[in-house]
Amino acid sequence: MTYTIFGESHGPAIGVVLSDVPPGIPVDEAYIARELGRRAPGRNDLSTARREADRAEILSGVFQGRTTGTPLGILIRNVDQHSSDYDVLREKARPSHADLPANVRYGGFQDHRGGGHFSGRLTAPLVAAGAVAKLYLREKGILVGAHIASIGGIPDDPMDMAEPPMETLAYWNETDFPTLNRAAGQAMQDKIRQCRTEGDSVGGTVACAVTGLPMGLGQPDLDRNGETIFARHLFAVPAVKGLEFGSGFRLSEMRGSRANDPWIPGPKTETNHNGGLLGGITTGMPLVFRVAFKPTPSISLPQKTVSMVTGEETVLELGGRHDPCVVHRAVPVVEAAAALAAAELLEGGRRG
Amino acid sequence: MTYTIFGESHGPAIGVVLSDVPPGIPVDEAYIARELGRRAPGRNDLSTARREADRAEILSGVFQGRTTGTPLGILIRNVDQHSSDYDVLREKARPSHADLPANVRYGGFQDHRGGGHFSGRLTAPLVAAGAVAKLYLREKGILVGAHIASIGGIPDDPMDMAEPPMETLAYWNETDFPTLNRAAGQAMQDKIRQCRTEGDSVGGTVACAVTGLPMGLGQPDLDRNGETIFARHLFAVPAVKGLEFGSGFRLSEMRGSRANDPWIPGPKTETNHNGGLLGGITTGMPLVFRVAFKPTPSISLPQKTVSMVTGEETVLELGGRHDPCVVHRAVPVVEAAAALAAAELLEGGRRG
Amino acid sequence: MTYTIFGESHGPAIGVVLSDVPPGIPVDEAYIARELGRRAPGRNDLSTARREADRAEILSGVFQGRTTGTPLGILIRNVDQHSSDYDVLREKARPSHADLPANVRYGGFQDHRGGGHFSGRLTAPLVAAGAVAKLYLREKGILVGAHIASIGGIPDDPMDMAEPPMETLAYWNETDFPTLNRAAGQAMQDKIRQCRTEGDSVGGTVACAVTGLPMGLGQPDLDRNGETIFARHLFAVPAVKGLEFGSGFRLSEMRGSRANDPWIPGPKTETNHNGGLLGGITTGMPLVFRVAFKPTPSISLPQKTVSMVTGEETVLELGGRHDPCVVHRAVPVVEAAAALAAAELLEGGRRG
Amino acid sequence: MTYTIFGESHGPAIGVVLSDVPPGIPVDEAYIARELGRRAPGRNDLSTARREADRAEILSGVFQGRTTGTPLGILIRNVDQHSSDYDVLREKARPSHADLPANVRYGGFQDHRGGGHFSGRLTAPLVAAGAVAKLYLREKGILVGAHIASIGGIPDDPMDMAEPPMETLAYWNETDFPTLNRAAGQAMQDKIRQCRTEGDSVGGTVACAVTGLPMGLGQPDLDRNGETIFARHLFAVPAVKGLEFGSGFRLSEMRGSRANDPWIPGPKTETNHNGGLLGGITTGMPLVFRVAFKPTPSISLPQKTVSMVTGEETVLELGGRHDPCVVHRAVPVVEAAAALAAAELLEGGRRG
Repeated sequence: MTYTIFGESHGPAIGVVLSDVPPGIPVDEAYIARELGRRAPGRNDLSTARREADRAEILSGVFQGRTTGTPLGILIRNVDQHSSDYDVLREKARPSHADLPANVRYGGFQDHRGGGHFSGRLTAPLVAAGAVAKLYLREKGILVGAHIASIGGIPDDPMDMAEPPMETLAYWNETDFPTLNRAAGQAMQDKIRQCRTEGDSVGGTVACAVTGLPMGLGQPDLDRNGETIFARHLFAVPAVKGLEFGSGFRLSEMRGSRANDPWIPGPKTETNHNGGLLGGITTGMPLVFRVAFKPTPSISLPQKTVSMVTGEETVLELGGRHDPCVVHRAVPVVEAAAALAAAELLEGGRRG
Repeated sequence: MTYTIFGESHGPAIGVVLSDVPPGIPVDEAYIARELGRRAPGRNDLSTARREADRAEILSGVFQGRTTGTPLGILIRNVDQHSSDYDVLREKARPSHADLPANVRYGGFQDHRGGGHFSGRLTAPLVAAGAVAKLYLREKGILVGAHIASIGGIPDDPMDMAEPPMETLAYWNETDFPTLNRAAGQAMQDKIRQCRTEGDSVGGTVACAVTGLPMGLGQPDLDRNGETIFARHLFAVPAVKGLEFGSGFRLSEMRGSRANDPWIPGPKTETNHNGGLLGGITTGMPLVFRVAFKPTPSISLPQKTVSMVTGEETVLELGGRHDPCVVHRAVPVVEAAAALAAAELLEGGRRG
Repeated sequence: MTYTIFGESHGPAIGVVLSDVPPGIPVDEAYIARELGRRAPGRNDLSTARREADRAEILSGVFQGRTTGTPLGILIRNVDQHSSDYDVLREKARPSHADLPANVRYGGFQDHRGGGHFSGRLTAPLVAAGAVAKLYLREKGILVGAHIASIGGIPDDPMDMAEPPMETLAYWNETDFPTLNRAAGQAMQDKIRQCRTEGDSVGGTVACAVTGLPMGLGQPDLDRNGETIFARHLFAVPAVKGLEFGSGFRLSEMRGSRANDPWIPGPKTETNHNGGLLGGITTGMPLVFRVAFKPTPSISLPQKTVSMVTGEETVLELGGRHDPCVVHRAVPVVEAAAALAAAELLEGGRRG
Repeated sequence: MTYTIFGESHGPAIGVVLSDVPPGIPVDEAYIARELGRRAPGRNDLSTARREADRAEILSGVFQGRTTGTPLGILIRNVDQHSSDYDVLREKARPSHADLPANVRYGGFQDHRGGGHFSGRLTAPLVAAGAVAKLYLREKGILVGAHIASIGGIPDDPMDMAEPPMETLAYWNETDFPTLNRAAGQAMQDKIRQCRTEGDSVGGTVACAVTGLPMGLGQPDLDRNGETIFARHLFAVPAVKGLEFGSGFRLSEMRGSRANDPWIPGPKTETNHNGGLLGGITTGMPLVFRVAFKPTPSISLPQKTVSMVTGEETVLELGGRHDPCVVHRAVPVVEAAAALAAAELLEGGRRG
């Protein structure tokens, strides 16, 4: 299962084509809609007021409620665009945004309106594609779930990596702000509201688990390696700047005698510091990882920048509607990328 | 430039084939040998006593001292093998090693001797391939350099991400233990020796910079994205469990007003929290990242594990020669992976 | 430039996503429409009466009349479907069609209506994608043109392979039945009408030239080889069963002294028996090839076949609207595949 | 199973790395040697006198006589080189050879000696890789066999495409000149000897069958399509200029009522004009195809050409040892390419 996302924020439509979809997967359109709803903005005071209908139309690859095995096209029409909000972007490069590098990369031909192809809106088709992948994985007993591990340094309780609370995932799947510790979640939300008030934004981390993957998938090379497959899918998610499997960066501070996960009959491992992958191959333990999201670059506070026209210094004051934090809306996006990665890993990774 | 590594630790030879090498690159064989020397064990008391000649023979793709543009094959014969040291590995799965998952993945047909294809020794051809990539990049004014950012939690001084001290790289390229702060380096080495004495091991992090990449390389998709390209190459390095670009995980704790890198005339950015990449596209700033290495899994201390034959619990006591820490030897490996990633990014990434 | 086609003949829509499109190409939508018109059925008495609107909507990747460099999505809604015409296909396998193998491949989940994803209708998005590729190539002085080289054994005049009459291509581009020799074209059309009358069908060949490709593109391997790139694109066209470059199969009957193309100052070659490719690399001469189309498998005459339900022998009598010959409608399809192949070759072929 | 070939005719060595090899395949080294022997020159008076030892050393990926599943490296050292024979090639471009286009493609850095990477000698590693693929296929009941279908227009008896005489393949595998009709073979050999006497060369065709492939492999797209997979592998074989599946070009002259292969209980088809593929999917019938080889470009007769140094017209008189015909030596090469294609098709084709 591979995907190609197309579309610009203020063009006619965005969408995705999924190739190499296994045939016969029951496609629950209400489920896809619910997943899109989890990502959609405008549901509470924590995100931008832009209302996106995000109605996904399946164009192909599904017949009588099941995947056919041929490319599955999904279309989401764009509505509620305020293109004029973005006129300033033709000239002033937003710091921490791709505006200026994209201007060089695409020779100035890119659609700048609303961030164009770089808009966070392009994660909607990713969530739709991920929903199809999740439906496929569920048939095989594989579950994907994530929680907000931190916002602006405020941590949630850590996930048990050897035995993630997947039964809670159904709950997460319906909440707007999935944390393991309710009080931590409240503190995070307070922080987000405070940032909004101050015209600022804040980053965070998302922890994710994929359970049910059998031992023995993947291999130690560039393209069929469990870690490289997940890394490729996750770093393709906008605003992700870090990724660690299992105990990740903390492993770099540990001794082998503590970091090594002892094998016990099963076989499985007692702990899961390696996050379910050894040598690029699944261990049969939950595949767990954590990703870091930078703070939303679009903030209302005045920012120093340069003009893309004159090259001279200027000040950017952004109007429009912006998220003070994307992390909670990114939870289904991370799950989608993980589901697509898990599907690719199951099918043997890239070939040829 | 893409590569395929082949070989097993105790087979006849290991090697690599580099495809899509630009023609006309001067190939300095002494440089390749020196790079291999940086990775080689047995040079000091910080690594295994196994002496590896690591003599790289170029089999093809070089004519009259320059690359021809056709596949470049490099061969390294294996010598000094103590296969009997590893007999225990046929039965007892080393914790945190791929032995058991590989046994499932390859149906028991893999070469277990010395870790076979999973041996750290397979990073030698990677370093050789990376040396060719570095020679290519150098012609274009692109430099790659790395330092040990921490060992077992002992930090080196942080690298200046907006202006990495690349002039020091020549020095690093000749030292066995590259740190920015000499005292920190000594403390790290003491820690490694202590671990060796205790039959234990320790992990660490490596920070790396690639300078000279122009603005506008890469794009925001799965395969031609600067972040996914580097992530794919770096997670293919054995023992890497985490990766962050720029300020990475620390960005998740920051506010946008501080995390955003202001554009200034150049155009360039004042700070480089984004590590030289925005939306998967290079900004023209140094591309900087940090990777986390887990502690060497092979330790002398007795470890709980299971028998791959009976599935029952047992205790593993490893003989043989092991590194108490691989991080300092991994510095040229990280640079090699970064050089290959940078070359791929320069050429437009994967296509098709 | 790579493409992914999606859609089923009787689903909501068909379409294509073009990735890695160079930015800044002027997109002439009228040209795309005209190209689609060349392929469309129902224009004369030589093809099926099914009227396909084939209105292509560009969903993304174009801004202010030029390509942006981001994925270019094209949508064609399906209309005028007579699904009931195809009910028989659920049971009886059409000889020479993919019905039965597809039933095995897709586990019976494929959309059988109108041939589903296997319908010749799926060549419409290919033509649309090819039109974009042609617009790109034209900017570089590269032209693509084809003629009907034979129908049912009736040959057109041979194309001059060293100097194809590309000035005639504009004409071809507006005729329904492009031949070099008008009388031959008439005889071919008579043959097609005769086949229609008899409830039968007939095959043919299409010869194509791509001019303006510089010397030195491609290389001798599996994926960046001029011949393998064209072969991959052309054998992906439905009903193509043979391909030859230059004098192709006739070369197998020739002596070297006659087959070798002498180099003359330019440098170019006096003759072009090799069809513009040597060792997978372009020679700077026109890239010329010929493809063989089998007769339309859907014929009205009763045919022996088996039931996909019972596995037993049965007789198929097809209703519905069928083309007695697809070759003339395939001319723009061949050109489209050639244009996409030429664009891929120009950009260096598949990588990685 | 994918392969990367490396090496130059007069460099230290040539070889191949096979990736994604299924583990556990018994590797019969004598078989590989015999396959290499079939391709080797100098066995009779029909080919060049150059003696190539072609001793293949397996460097990796095989343990205790079976494939391990990790990359399988094969090395063939070069010996018996007469580099001076080729000095003329630095200046004068051989007609119908890649010398001149390669000079442009590789900026003059390529190894010209003996044709360098373009030498027919590079088909030796292909045959070695194909031998491994054949051993894999044989385990699954899949056989590959080919015969010389024509030389210089002299035809062999046609192969029965619905039921190829695979039992004869064992015989073919030991003969130097595999034809179905002995007298035809004699006539072909006479023709080759006559060409040698006259300092000329001659082309021919090879027909090949792959039996035992189950119905339902492949799909109708660019990269997982049975026809595109075989086409990619076959056009990567040097000197191949044409390819047709089943009745191929003859289908273009036929009517549907005769060309369609009726399904009969099995299900299978009564005839096999489609060569075992419909819509890119295997039908379960033998996969049969024919390839056209051009005459060996290297001939002793004086040839008009240009100087790569001055660009001016000159005359080339080739010394050295040349094959008047490569077709009989190409039979195992075609089989190797077919075996590698069949293995790729079995495993699902390229992904991602």
